[in-house]
Amino acid sequence: MKRPTAPKPAVPETPSAAEPPLRLQLWSPAGVVARPPALRRAARHLGTLGFEVTVDPDALARHQRFAGDDAQRLAALHRIADAAPDVVLASRGGYGLMRVLDGIDWARLGRSIAGGSRWVGYSDLTALQLGALAHRAGPMWAGPLACDDFGRTAEEGGIDEITEACFVEAMHGELEAIGFRGEAGFDGLEVRGTLWGGNLSVLCSLLGTPHLPKVRGGILFLEDVNEHPYRIERMLLQLAQAGVLEAQKAVVLGSFSDWKPSPLDRGYTLKTMVAGLRSRLKVPLLSGLPFGHQRTKVCLPVGRRATLAVEGRDHLIVWGH
Amino acid sequence: MKRPTAPKPAVPETPSAAEPPLRLQLWSPAGVVARPPALRRAARHLGTLGFEVTVDPDALARHQRFAGDDAQRLAALHRIADAAPDVVLASRGGYGLMRVLDGIDWARLGRSIAGGSRWVGYSDLTALQLGALAHRAGPMWAGPLACDDFGRTAEEGGIDEITEACFVEAMHGELEAIGFRGEAGFDGLEVRGTLWGGNLSVLCSLLGTPHLPKVRGGILFLEDVNEHPYRIERMLLQLAQAGVLEAQKAVVLGSFSDWKPSPLDRGYTLKTMVAGLRSRLKVPLLSGLPFGHQRTKVCLPVGRRATLAVEGRDHLIVWGH
Repeated sequence: MKRPTAPKPAVPETPSAAEPPLRLQLWSPAGVVARPPALRRAARHLGTLGFEVTVDPDALARHQRFAGDDAQRLAALHRIADAAPDVVLASRGGYGLMRVLDGIDWARLGRSIAGGSRWVGYSDLTALQLGALAHRAGPMWAGPLACDDFGRTAEEGGIDEITEACFVEAMHGELEAIGFRGEAGFDGLEVRGTLWGGNLSVLCSLLGTPHLPKVRGGILFLEDVNEHPYRIERMLLQLAQAGVLEAQKAVVLGSFSDWKPSPLDRGYTLKTMVAGLRSRLKVPLLSGLPFGHQRTKVCLPVGRRATLAVEGRDHLIVWGH
Repeated sequence: MKRPTAPKPAVPETPSAAEPPLRLQLWSPAGVVARPPALRRAARHLGTLGFEVTVDPDALARHQRFAGDDAQRLAALHRIADAAPDVVLASRGGYGLMRVLDGIDWARLGRSIAGGSRWVGYSDLTALQLGALAHRAGPMWAGPLACDDFGRTAEEGGIDEITEACFVEAMHGELEAIGFRGEAGFDGLEVRGTLWGGNLSVLCSLLGTPHLPKVRGGILFLEDVNEHPYRIERMLLQLAQAGVLEAQKAVVLGSFSDWKPSPLDRGYTLKTMVAGLRSRLKVPLLSGLPFGHQRTKVCLPVGRRATLAVEGRDHLIVWGH
């Protein structure tokens, strides 16, 4: 696991007395919260970080594998957009946003973003973040999820310091760059474009639909979980054949975790797959971004202009305030 | 498992003395043949059915998880297209065709089809069949695979009679319809259009690329394996949001097999998922097609004009000769 190196995010020691605490709203846009204690632990912990936490009344709703039926989750989204809290943090991902994309009032969501709300999450939340970009609602944040990241017990490894520090800084509007150590071979690369991306499976499931933004000259970051490298390759080839990859200035891979090797692989690994794609594609394919289904994850503003610069193996993504 | 009912395909008792035997070429366009004896058993069995079987020299090639590297598999495809045997049957699927689609000489492939070659397979072969349709190379056959269907030992359940009978009849140009018992609720439905489809994951991996045919007013058949219903739903929603589903006159589901329920499902099943989609979509969503990753599979000409007619629960797909 690569860890961010520069600039090192810093947690504010205590919430400043001069500033009122940020209002943070927890909600459940997708999968059911199967373990409510994790959400309570997350709420408590976020409180100790200085946020004024409220939990959406439907955050623990249950309908099959979803946190409430589609109408309920859509209503929560619009209700929260209208309330415009400072931070809107999803409890968890799973699957569910694709079902409601067609029903979202993007202008209403856009007003909350323009008003200063920071919507945060990853995994299934990619559908919302890319939809927001496609429908010009404004940038959201790829970042942690309440249960997965702030609801961890000590036995589950506890809360990751870098994840927490990045999140606090980003939510206070103070995170302007992240750094990490990537693979060698890209020294001197410097590109500027729209930073976008998220979960590869979710992004691919938007291909051909009106909810995938048409980003040209961008910096595309990708992560996934439980997908064998051949499936990751298939998705990346689809993005290549659809003209998406070559339209970017750089592609940055986060973590691709929890896949099971097959006895058929015979030397076909994540590493050889990426090497094969590099020989096939013209766009630089970087890796090592601390983002994905792993403990350490940075926050990234989806849809903001950013610069990616590489010096030796040090990679820096800067978007400014 | 639904079984075809009418018309019941019949295996020719013995190859006619008047007709020379059909030349059948086995090849490996995608995944490595991990168990060569299965291919030898298939070749032997196909011989007893009256085919004159040859095995491509690279059918047992190995490169990582593939049956030879991309150049090797692409060369085999073009070599076989030029040789124009009567039947071109793939050893197995797996993953691999997406890697070579950009390199296929579709006109060359089209000449073999126009010359009478019947290319057959399912699963990963969907990429080739849909590519052939998109690039106007002509219709191929969705049908069995050599190892999976004709290479089965008695311990593996042996060879399915219906699969075999349909295949023999189709390869002799004598299969003009298949029948099966579907769900109630579609009595009286009759639609006509291009028959197309195959593996849902593979079809979705072509969305946005030049290799997905733009079929309007068609009859779309779909199957998949190892995909949880939420992933099948996500793919179907993508096809809906991309305008593909509603452009069809009917969607016919084959088998969706080998997925593992999750404790999170709480009543979300393949059946409730399909019911939910039916309430959302205007296009008729039929099921029960004996096709997919199951023993019994019919042969279907991908890209031929066909009529789908339902009487009670009896479903008939007719394409004529």
